[in-house]
Amino acid sequence: MLDRIRIVLVQTFHPGNIGASARAMKTMGLSDLVLVNPRQFPDEEATRLAAGATDVIDGCRVVESLSDAIADCVQVIGASARLRSLPLPCYHGVEPMIEASWPRLADGPVAMVFGRERYGLTNEEIGHCTHQLNIPANPDYGILNLSQAVQIVAYEAFKRHTREASDAASRTSRAGEAYPNIEQLAHFHDHLHRALTSAGFLNQPHAKTEAHLKALFARAEPSRKELSILRGVLNALERSDPT
Amino acid sequence: MLDRIRIVLVQTFHPGNIGASARAMKTMGLSDLVLVNPRQFPDEEATRLAAGATDVIDGCRVVESLSDAIADCVQVIGASARLRSLPLPCYHGVEPMIEASWPRLADGPVAMVFGRERYGLTNEEIGHCTHQLNIPANPDYGILNLSQAVQIVAYEAFKRHTREASDAASRTSRAGEAYPNIEQLAHFHDHLHRALTSAGFLNQPHAKTEAHLKALFARAEPSRKELSILRGVLNALERSDPT
Repeated sequence: MLDRIRIVLVQTFHPGNIGASARAMKTMGLSDLVLVNPRQFPDEEATRLAAGATDVIDGCRVVESLSDAIADCVQVIGASARLRSLPLPCYHGVEPMIEASWPRLADGPVAMVFGRERYGLTNEEIGHCTHQLNIPANPDYGILNLSQAVQIVAYEAFKRHTREASDAASRTSRAGEAYPNIEQLAHFHDHLHRALTSAGFLNQPHAKTEAHLKALFARAEPSRKELSILRGVLNALERSDPT
Repeated sequence: MLDRIRIVLVQTFHPGNIGASARAMKTMGLSDLVLVNPRQFPDEEATRLAAGATDVIDGCRVVESLSDAIADCVQVIGASARLRSLPLPCYHGVEPMIEASWPRLADGPVAMVFGRERYGLTNEEIGHCTHQLNIPANPDYGILNLSQAVQIVAYEAFKRHTREASDAASRTSRAGEAYPNIEQLAHFHDHLHRALTSAGFLNQPHAKTEAHLKALFARAEPSRKELSILRGVLNALERSDPT
């Protein structure tokens, strides 16, 4: 399961942080690293700080855009020091995030997305995510180094992985349902946009109607079957007369 | 309480690790740092990697021997990658260590002692400790970077410190949103039924389309605002031409 947790680093500035992140991953059993448009890579500093994890560095994918990094993922969690005003569901704490995401690993990769050292992730990049993660920290100075944030996530994942016994989940189980991947969700979002537009809903941009509905559907975590039902509803919506 | 957790670094080789450890501490509310005979300190690299935690660097004590670092402590826990043959009690995992030590903070400082990057702590130094700590990690490569080990310890300490307030949450938070009552939800279900009927969706009872959608919306736990958006979508659906 640990090999299904994907660490995605977006436009990392310091190659040393890439190496340190690779080491943080490997010590906790993770191996799937994807770099989106790193400033400087490959690099000596990355190799040096990777220490015994050069295989993670050597095996990592380097892509141009965040979409390329996450298309096959069933969940995409954006780590963010500051909460956005976007109505995206947010995990407060790494442990609850790992606990909630763990069952999803059965269906496909779950991506943890980390942004630039100084600027984090853009709103557009957060828009590619299904959830946000906030790591509670010192309110006077809560800015973790990038590779340290990766270490904490990897550490909690390893802890969960080795925890014996009962899946004493407070969540109801939805066994037997396959989840859509990010690409299928992206198609759904496009369809939602077209249907809302043709039904005349998006004429008041300040209302954030589309963002609210996207967040609602993200929370619902539709299975593939439910997604196809929703797309049937959207088709019907497209045939309606606008207000 | 967090200021009573003392981080002791013994003969650290890379000044960068000192700086990164200071940052790891401050982001999690710790402040008491003691350096035993560091190879190179003060140093630019330490200051650079401390980032916003230069106050921790500036305020740290530098001593000649481990005894000087821990004399006033009520518990001294030596972090060790490998277990020694010494009959010293050992915590397997950071969380149980924090849990067990927490009550001792009322009596005085508790020290976490970390050794050299390459060689860890000597048997003589472990002899100064009351306990050992082993951080469970990848059996194929479990050697965490020094400052990463400090980060994990500090992170678990901060979690413990803030646990009273928070907790209960494997659920995402949605503070500040009013939820519909049962009557409003019943109206929504009636409206859903009418809209799906008029759009021609309910002609195949075996498909359980309505049941699937009701379950999906139940999971999403729409707020009142979201419910009104959904009802707007249902209104538009009612104006559509059935298939």
